[in-house]
Amino acid sequence: MPDYSIGVDLGGTNLRIAAVDQEGELLEKITLGTRIALGRDLVLKDMCDAIQQLVAKYREVGPLTGIGIGVPGIIDMASGMVLESPNLPGWTDYPVRAEIEKRLGTQVILENDANSAALGENWLGAAKAVEDMAILTLGTGVGGGLVLGRRIWHGMTGMAGEFGHMTVEPEGPRCGCGNHGCLEALASATAIVRMAREAIANGAAPGLSLAASSNPEFNSKAIYNLAIQGDEGAKKIFRRVGRALGIVLSNLINGLNLPMYVVGGGVSSAWDAFAPSLFEELRQRCMVYAATSPEPANKQGASAHVTPTGKTRTLVTRALLGSDAGLFGAARLPQVSIDQNFASAVSVRSPS
Amino acid sequence: MPDYSIGVDLGGTNLRIAAVDQEGELLEKITLGTRIALGRDLVLKDMCDAIQQLVAKYREVGPLTGIGIGVPGIIDMASGMVLESPNLPGWTDYPVRAEIEKRLGTQVILENDANSAALGENWLGAAKAVEDMAILTLGTGVGGGLVLGRRIWHGMTGMAGEFGHMTVEPEGPRCGCGNHGCLEALASATAIVRMAREAIANGAAPGLSLAASSNPEFNSKAIYNLAIQGDEGAKKIFRRVGRALGIVLSNLINGLNLPMYVVGGGVSSAWDAFAPSLFEELRQRCMVYAATSPEPANKQGASAHVTPTGKTRTLVTRALLGSDAGLFGAARLPQVSIDQNFASAVSVRSPS
Repeated sequence: MPDYSIGVDLGGTNLRIAAVDQEGELLEKITLGTRIALGRDLVLKDMCDAIQQLVAKYREVGPLTGIGIGVPGIIDMASGMVLESPNLPGWTDYPVRAEIEKRLGTQVILENDANSAALGENWLGAAKAVEDMAILTLGTGVGGGLVLGRRIWHGMTGMAGEFGHMTVEPEGPRCGCGNHGCLEALASATAIVRMAREAIANGAAPGLSLAASSNPEFNSKAIYNLAIQGDEGAKKIFRRVGRALGIVLSNLINGLNLPMYVVGGGVSSAWDAFAPSLFEELRQRCMVYAATSPEPANKQGASAHVTPTGKTRTLVTRALLGSDAGLFGAARLPQVSIDQNFASAVSVRSPS
Repeated sequence: MPDYSIGVDLGGTNLRIAAVDQEGELLEKITLGTRIALGRDLVLKDMCDAIQQLVAKYREVGPLTGIGIGVPGIIDMASGMVLESPNLPGWTDYPVRAEIEKRLGTQVILENDANSAALGENWLGAAKAVEDMAILTLGTGVGGGLVLGRRIWHGMTGMAGEFGHMTVEPEGPRCGCGNHGCLEALASATAIVRMAREAIANGAAPGLSLAASSNPEFNSKAIYNLAIQGDEGAKKIFRRVGRALGIVLSNLINGLNLPMYVVGGGVSSAWDAFAPSLFEELRQRCMVYAATSPEPANKQGASAHVTPTGKTRTLVTRALLGSDAGLFGAARLPQVSIDQNFASAVSVRSPS
């Protein structure tokens, strides 16, 4: 039996805990609701109970490499504190890592959820073939992660990869971070709904207006459904999403010259609606893409970053692991950690 | 006597060749005009003659680690071809590295000039204290270089670091690369003169207008001189330069979370004129800067990236080595090359 590790994806809605072996095979996954309203102590208890349950069950089958936990927020890597997390109200400036370690009696690795997703796609998903890659995760917000040499690039304080807060339109819509015209303010699920409501308010989008009044759940998915049905107002919004993504990806390609850029998160399901304008921006704006583009294969999300003739190519493609990317990436964390404390097997305190 | 290496800075105006020891001490520097008009063969002969002259002179004093050559253009690292170089017309798609190696009878390292400047500032200049840093070089164009772990980050094909072609204003002025609103179209010496001429044509800048008609050399330096004398038209241009730099630096800080960002190149002499609006943008736009800013020390270009209390800080500062950054960086190239071929001493063919 090979070594295994525990990955946790602590989301605003779901709390998922998995045991994954070192080949990436799922041994078991526990899915719970994240009971945020009942307080962080209870959420941490749910998490630690599930971890201990899995550890007890797989104790006999092989050594535990470690425990990785993906959290939706900015994490100070040195202190293990959550510095900012819109989806986990009340968790800011709280010693999350220390609290979990106290409960489990062992070290854990805390990581930003988009960084975990990057690692997951690099390990088992769309970016398996490359050493270096970046991810944009389009959800309620827009996250980002950078993997160099199959390790997460953390930067000085663990805040690297905040591609969602790159400026696309200097005078654009206000972002939650305080800036104007961030990618997140133009390409998140929240931004899509906001742009739809603005179009409705301007009286410029009868299809959206009808849908908003008849559909109690008027969300980005509903707007995408309108777009693929041909509604011009909805299509226009996804063109703006694609343009914003194309500008940020142009900047990343010119700046980093990586072989692969992955677009993930729930909104990436709307790929068909935003991808054409995304690639149009890349072709028009990005000199490094022009020199290394695999057109037209890239439009279909080709999986090889080297052509049969051996030429290196820049690929921009959809994520493959869906909502599991962050969970598998979290399980991968202990395996790639440079910290020798995590390199050998760890033991977890039994439930008291 | 320590090992030494040869660095070459092949500029559009000057061709400089230096012997530098492994501690960064200059042994000797030869400065020639780049006789571009007489053809690339003559320029290469001038360069190789000077290299051979230095090698013959310092043969007795220690082993030669290698030869590094900084070139103003995009270089395909695999083939050693210059793919694009506005300042070296006629050098494109020409096997520069192979031709130099044939003449010298040994391997050389070809590198983009901004990458060389990054390495030089990291070795001996403003970024000596850090492992990871980025540079923006403001000259005729805007170059960029990224150093991670004291090595140049090349990316997949050697094109990484093209920060001058990050988009600042999606509908902004046309850039030479084909894009609109690149940093280069808003913060290069060329852009500064273009913006001044536009202001003059709009009749909105009497000071600039007077200077342009009386000064046969109406260049970015002349416009800077007007700005520090208080001319509102000139000041406005440098505010736009600072804003563009601030937006690109915000993107780099949010994306990479490096400890140090250096602004170099000839236009960085105008620091006083553009720095206030640069830092204003950082404060307003950049969440990672807000979390790690060393204000107000940073405004003076503080040199320590860790405060006395040990807290990590993001520093944005001026380059220290001036026009020698690229030359020293080129000499550093053989020392940090991962290619084992360059790790031992090399011998150069004598002039025939």
